[in-house]
Amino acid sequence: MSHTPAADLADRLARARQYAADLGIGALVVSPGPDLRYLIGYDAVPLERLTALVIPAHGDPLMVVPLLERPAALASPAGELGIDVLSWGETDDPYALVASTLPGVASVAVDNRMWAEKALRLRAAMPSVEQRLAGEVINHLRMRKTPSEVASLQRAGAAIDSVHASVTQWLRAGRTEREVGRDIADAILAAGHVSVDFVIVASGPNGASPHHEVSDRVIERGDAVVVDIGGTMPDGYCSDETRTYAVGTPSDEFLAAYEVLQRSQAAAVAHVRPGVACESIDAVARGILSDAGLGDLFIHRTGHGIGLETHEEPYIVSGNATLLEAGFAFSIEPGFYLAGVHGARIEDIVVCGDTGPILMNARPRELVMVGE
Amino acid sequence: MSHTPAADLADRLARARQYAADLGIGALVVSPGPDLRYLIGYDAVPLERLTALVIPAHGDPLMVVPLLERPAALASPAGELGIDVLSWGETDDPYALVASTLPGVASVAVDNRMWAEKALRLRAAMPSVEQRLAGEVINHLRMRKTPSEVASLQRAGAAIDSVHASVTQWLRAGRTEREVGRDIADAILAAGHVSVDFVIVASGPNGASPHHEVSDRVIERGDAVVVDIGGTMPDGYCSDETRTYAVGTPSDEFLAAYEVLQRSQAAAVAHVRPGVACESIDAVARGILSDAGLGDLFIHRTGHGIGLETHEEPYIVSGNATLLEAGFAFSIEPGFYLAGVHGARIEDIVVCGDTGPILMNARPRELVMVGE
Repeated sequence: MSHTPAADLADRLARARQYAADLGIGALVVSPGPDLRYLIGYDAVPLERLTALVIPAHGDPLMVVPLLERPAALASPAGELGIDVLSWGETDDPYALVASTLPGVASVAVDNRMWAEKALRLRAAMPSVEQRLAGEVINHLRMRKTPSEVASLQRAGAAIDSVHASVTQWLRAGRTEREVGRDIADAILAAGHVSVDFVIVASGPNGASPHHEVSDRVIERGDAVVVDIGGTMPDGYCSDETRTYAVGTPSDEFLAAYEVLQRSQAAAVAHVRPGVACESIDAVARGILSDAGLGDLFIHRTGHGIGLETHEEPYIVSGNATLLEAGFAFSIEPGFYLAGVHGARIEDIVVCGDTGPILMNARPRELVMVGE
Repeated sequence: MSHTPAADLADRLARARQYAADLGIGALVVSPGPDLRYLIGYDAVPLERLTALVIPAHGDPLMVVPLLERPAALASPAGELGIDVLSWGETDDPYALVASTLPGVASVAVDNRMWAEKALRLRAAMPSVEQRLAGEVINHLRMRKTPSEVASLQRAGAAIDSVHASVTQWLRAGRTEREVGRDIADAILAAGHVSVDFVIVASGPNGASPHHEVSDRVIERGDAVVVDIGGTMPDGYCSDETRTYAVGTPSDEFLAAYEVLQRSQAAAVAHVRPGVACESIDAVARGILSDAGLGDLFIHRTGHGIGLETHEEPYIVSGNATLLEAGFAFSIEPGFYLAGVHGARIEDIVVCGDTGPILMNARPRELVMVGE
């Protein structure tokens, strides 16, 4: 279900077409996924039958859909946008159908999430056509959030804040990570998300694995516990927030490192403003940890863009010289990870405002002490 | 989490390597998704950072994983299988790393679900290497279910049967499709699934759209309601079952057509045995509907394979001359769809046994009459 007005979608389509033309791309071919939802508000499930939005750089967009998806496509905003819908039957070749709509086109860009089987079959149907990635065009648009998209991220941020506000009710020594994770997952839905995208409850030594999920480990006194959670809201926008909790009192070494981490995260957030390079945000976060001898323990980039996907451009990573612009939305989430011992991370979603950062999350960043 | 013994996984890997060699494929490159789970039991989430299992046709398999995923990869069965794990850091090029492990290879097959951005970047890192689809190899294996996989599908079938057995508690005139769908979704989880994959509650005229999901339409007396539901079990195997319900008494025209549909579905199921072509199952189902003048209303193929994905090979469709073998698992789900009026479908999951069909679902196929 789309919540984006048709006029906004029409504008996105027009800008995508124009930008494709500017880059010398003959057409975009977009299959179900976040790009399709962004461009025409059609939240179709990716399945093996080809559904594709075809956007010629010079010509009108059209859709190619399986006959049995035709009612759903017409009921979507694609119908309201007046996009032509071509249907194909079960024994037709949809790739040949797409090719037939693009005579004389020299290059086609497919959406970055298209399945390889579709990209390769489209290539086979258009063997002399150069294949590129539509991310060149669509990520350029999706990175630059409009005010209404920022409002969507704020609602998502408030929803996940409300879950973190309740974590101390569920987290205590003697329960397993999985039990705590189940309570959190229920709360993510109760807070207004339509799906639970991930629940990390990483206690004690498990905290040293950044992408640990949950396990049957029983939480113990003295554990630090990394809780990194997120979901998708009804309008498609995602939440993602990490706080670190302590059940009882963790080691002095941990507490000292956490104090540095908190300074690192705050400084990186404060550094956000238009014209700053993505990699420079990473450098600020990393520098403070490195100065305290913790640089080797910060084993991942500082952040990722967020919007209709939890991970999208821009990535806040060394080597990404992209300059921030107002409307860029991304996580700032430094951490430290000591294998076999403990880990910690603090993560907020930040939007680059006209003069500085706008925070989508409001929970305190101090270590949250949990009674035993 | 994998529930497949390491010996079975090792056998799958060995057969994949051998079959790739037979087809002249130099290596398989498999990213997170059902193929990866099938081959090494690693249920990794597809994300933008490249995780890949590399299976050279002549050489030992290895994994390429982001540094921060290394603990998860080692904790997965990949660790138990003794597969070498190469890690890459945030500023390394993982595509160059994969390429460096495959010197002199002339063709590489990528998994069918790999994201286009990964397939195209791998192609760019190996520009003179032919790119093919690993489905040629892996679908060949995945189509042929072992007895333990059939047992998994039986458990999934029993779980979704138990949900259908309760639908009459929730379905009644005056409730919306969405309300009924929410009850069903809760029940899918309560029945032992770990995820709800789809919930179609298509009432009255909505039944004419085969892939309708739910809407705010209020169910009325006299409606036929197509309920097509499925989820994923803890071991990764999927359920999928459709029954058609009637709230009060539907039209005589509907009842007459439903009687034909039931014969069509039963005859197609009875036709299943080794050596029969997939398209011949479709022809049997379609023939009975066509003989009754309903052929034009049966607008989709008769079925799809099922296993670690809800839709996989073999497809039961005209043009698919693949001969059934014992262990093939697929849906048989003819339907009729009269736009603006009504629709119906009956779907069971069937495994081809040594001498005939083995049904994974046991609910009666008669129209289920619901009190108002």
